[in-house]
Amino acid sequence: MRASQLFARTLREAPAEAEVASHKLLLRAAHIRKLMAGVYTWLPLGFRTLSKIEAIIREEMNASGAQEIRMPIVVPAEPWKATGRWQTYGEEMFKLKDRHDRELGLGPTQEEVVTPLVAGEFASYRDLPVNLYQIEWKYRDELRPRFGLLRGREFLMKDAYSFDRDVEGLRLSYRAMYEAYERIFDRCGLKYRIVEADPGSIGGDVNHEYMALADVGEDLFVHCENGDYAADVEAAEARAPEHSGVSELEPLTEVSTPDRPGIDAVADLLRLPASRMLKCMLFDAGGRTVATLVPGDREVNEKKVARAMWPAPVRLFEDHEFAERGFVKGYVGPQSMPDDVLVIADRSVGSRGNWVTGANRPDHHVTGANVERDFRVDRWEDVSRVREGDPCPRCGGTLHIGRSIVVGHIYQLGTRYSKPLKATFVDEDGTEQPYQMGCYGIGLSRIVAACAEQFHDEAGLLWPRALAPYEVVVIATNMDQPAVVEAAETLYSQLQGAGLDVVFDDRDVTAGVKFADADLIGYPLHAVVGRRGLESGSADLKLRATGERRQASLSTAAGDIVALLATAP
Amino acid sequence: MRASQLFARTLREAPAEAEVASHKLLLRAAHIRKLMAGVYTWLPLGFRTLSKIEAIIREEMNASGAQEIRMPIVVPAEPWKATGRWQTYGEEMFKLKDRHDRELGLGPTQEEVVTPLVAGEFASYRDLPVNLYQIEWKYRDELRPRFGLLRGREFLMKDAYSFDRDVEGLRLSYRAMYEAYERIFDRCGLKYRIVEADPGSIGGDVNHEYMALADVGEDLFVHCENGDYAADVEAAEARAPEHSGVSELEPLTEVSTPDRPGIDAVADLLRLPASRMLKCMLFDAGGRTVATLVPGDREVNEKKVARAMWPAPVRLFEDHEFAERGFVKGYVGPQSMPDDVLVIADRSVGSRGNWVTGANRPDHHVTGANVERDFRVDRWEDVSRVREGDPCPRCGGTLHIGRSIVVGHIYQLGTRYSKPLKATFVDEDGTEQPYQMGCYGIGLSRIVAACAEQFHDEAGLLWPRALAPYEVVVIATNMDQPAVVEAAETLYSQLQGAGLDVVFDDRDVTAGVKFADADLIGYPLHAVVGRRGLESGSADLKLRATGERRQASLSTAAGDIVALLATAP
Repeated sequence: MRASQLFARTLREAPAEAEVASHKLLLRAAHIRKLMAGVYTWLPLGFRTLSKIEAIIREEMNASGAQEIRMPIVVPAEPWKATGRWQTYGEEMFKLKDRHDRELGLGPTQEEVVTPLVAGEFASYRDLPVNLYQIEWKYRDELRPRFGLLRGREFLMKDAYSFDRDVEGLRLSYRAMYEAYERIFDRCGLKYRIVEADPGSIGGDVNHEYMALADVGEDLFVHCENGDYAADVEAAEARAPEHSGVSELEPLTEVSTPDRPGIDAVADLLRLPASRMLKCMLFDAGGRTVATLVPGDREVNEKKVARAMWPAPVRLFEDHEFAERGFVKGYVGPQSMPDDVLVIADRSVGSRGNWVTGANRPDHHVTGANVERDFRVDRWEDVSRVREGDPCPRCGGTLHIGRSIVVGHIYQLGTRYSKPLKATFVDEDGTEQPYQMGCYGIGLSRIVAACAEQFHDEAGLLWPRALAPYEVVVIATNMDQPAVVEAAETLYSQLQGAGLDVVFDDRDVTAGVKFADADLIGYPLHAVVGRRGLESGSADLKLRATGERRQASLSTAAGDIVALLATAP
Repeated sequence: MRASQLFARTLREAPAEAEVASHKLLLRAAHIRKLMAGVYTWLPLGFRTLSKIEAIIREEMNASGAQEIRMPIVVPAEPWKATGRWQTYGEEMFKLKDRHDRELGLGPTQEEVVTPLVAGEFASYRDLPVNLYQIEWKYRDELRPRFGLLRGREFLMKDAYSFDRDVEGLRLSYRAMYEAYERIFDRCGLKYRIVEADPGSIGGDVNHEYMALADVGEDLFVHCENGDYAADVEAAEARAPEHSGVSELEPLTEVSTPDRPGIDAVADLLRLPASRMLKCMLFDAGGRTVATLVPGDREVNEKKVARAMWPAPVRLFEDHEFAERGFVKGYVGPQSMPDDVLVIADRSVGSRGNWVTGANRPDHHVTGANVERDFRVDRWEDVSRVREGDPCPRCGGTLHIGRSIVVGHIYQLGTRYSKPLKATFVDEDGTEQPYQMGCYGIGLSRIVAACAEQFHDEAGLLWPRALAPYEVVVIATNMDQPAVVEAAETLYSQLQGAGLDVVFDDRDVTAGVKFADADLIGYPLHAVVGRRGLESGSADLKLRATGERRQASLSTAAGDIVALLATAP
């Protein structure tokens, strides 16, 4: 490709709204352009990188035995209502009506399409297992799209769905995907961790995330200093503290705490550590009130509450709801909870007693609140958020928190979808059984952004060779010198002949502009043909990632470039 | 691929709603499955064929110098309102709102996205020409989706957009696409015609359609017996009849025609040929009334009226509108038309006089109606539909009408989009000029259906080699005989080694079922390994398209298959 024709105009400055490096650089390096919030057009350079990722994924998926299909983007509402996701996704799912007023959605993932499909074709145990995948655009109407491709409303995803006879089969299918994902992310050159994760609105049980490490990542993960535990912060558990023992139950006593609706304010007033307080947070779970209890020095993890209540959509009470449902905002305690309220206590609440908590009337708290005697707990769950420094659930070592971008997520769904969709096969004994399903996602457009976050410097992008839109740029520094142009043309066609993806920067601009663009776009290898080099019969080579430079004789430059490129990351 | 694992279950019968061969066979041969009206999932076999078409298109588009990009499917309403297409498409465009109540659409074609994109990047005449394309799913909410992939609501399209400085450049860009399209359809093996066409709701001037010949096609085209003219029936002109001369203008006379609101009924009553009647059809064009006049023996071509009124959306009057707007349904004549009505007469109306037409009051017609004396014509246009037997506009020869499926459509748009979208470049003289645009579409999913229509027989599909999901099927007739299985396995791996796309039918079903499936799916070459053949060391080969059979020694079968396959269509 000749740069003079390439549809790519680099930008000196990124728009002010671009906050993170990947967003800024992908715009500046003419890889993407914004159409509207969270929705981007892919220019030729960005599209080529995306296509290379697609090819890697397709190869590894096919090698794993998965079969490629293509499901519609526009989906009917009915199966989504059957699984509950029409409601769970709520406003996050784009919804529309066709001209006959039929309700449709734009698919965020496609369990509701693929499950009935498989049930219609592979209805016998003899047909199983099968794993179907597609690479297609997905939609999520994010409340606040941001960070360019990192939180977009339209994104390219590889989604695979496995169907097995039994749990053992599911584990094998899951393992095959787990390993295929490792090969995929390794080939993309990403630095990543595999962590235990939260299933989110997909549902299911065992699941893992592939997290590309990145300081700007919004996805936090916990990892033990001893390396034996790594988990998404939304799923991570800390070891519950030892029972410190309540030698004597204090009496339940009401104390006046005027104008002190927050934990810290009350703790201050009573000169107690926040850890002695019992925090009682109220949620709405599909219409039902859920009270969650955690020690005052910890946060409730809303995702864990959602998981405990799946598939009901869970949200914190809004201000007006407290009074409407008979609660006193700022002074809620678990005592005398009505029977229709579900009380979930974090496991850590069991290790202590004599809690200080809200008195359920304005400006008052109670001290000496104890489980069973003063309040009931309907379910004990892990609903608190892990903090830096918490003890590891495996070894008790210290947990640390890191930041990342989730680029892959695999799930053991079990029968979470096959049951509500009545998707069954006939087993060997003649009985109808729901499929044991797994689902497996990779965000292709996110990989582009994650790579840009991991591999860039002040001057621009540093594409790994496998994902670079072009592997080599040939720069002719003096387009007004026929000998230079001729030598550059020769090298360009030799490199094309060698099967490399090459750009020839034949533009009528200064060498400085060409160097800056080559750095910004991040071609892995730059080959410079100029007047002075030509006099000594040589070209200057540079590896963008390492900055390594060397001269090559023009007569052997093509071979030298192939060899040098093989050493690039 | 082993048939025992392939996600493909053929059907004995197609669902009753499948009316045409392509729809029936693509369902029966497990290429597609319906999700809802006009929306299909592509199973592995269909997806492979679609991918092969995609690869051919990508190769030829890249070779023509076009650059691949990827534009969003979800598009903002604003630019569509600027070009008028938000209204022109009306209910045919899927429309939705995001959670912030912003109006969005699903793109049917993407002029409104690509035009501002190019204006933002290639703003100088030095940058031009440029041709950008994408291969992406498109959406049209058809009133009556039918015929499977032929009239779907979600379809895969290659859409390209060229941008030039001037009309001469546009013609060159157009020519390059014209020729690339010939190569693409030739490589797909389609039988097709290139015809002059109607621009429909895309707009613009010169345009051509690539029509795959098919008896079930809904797209009619006109072709001259002498081969010098071919056009879409919606665009075709016939030579206007000679002026037969009105020697004497008869007086305008009202006649009673009770209960005879139709042309034929009145012609019967007055014992006149329908050709003496003047038909006056009323349209609404974006709120304005348009009266169109054609001789009584001809039909008004609504698409031509729409073209004359572009970009206003044009539709026939609904029954209730006649009275509301002061007309008498069934008795409309062009006399005393209000000034705000636009009167368009077909050119053929100019060749005659003394017309019989409606009297604008119930149960009455007039005779002796003549242009100018009795009614005005605001515009003379070609608005009538060509009929079998009409004279060719080029040579006067006889025109015939054929049926086809439009698989490609290319347009010289000129400034139809760049002007309303204010998309300009700076020309050599420093002035701002709107781009001269072309747009170029290919329906990939339609090619699949058109090929299935053209290439099938009673037993199933007859895929051309270039598009077949797999080129060869190896059939082992006796899976219970280890020697047969072993010989088939060997051949299977030899063919894979030779780089062919091969299916090994290793299923535990009868040979009859395997033969029937191989015919139904339409693999170009069948290689049968059975017990009897094995005794003589041979395999039976069959070319599906021609039925040609031959034996091959197992020791050389792989080479024979490669050679025989090369002779397949």
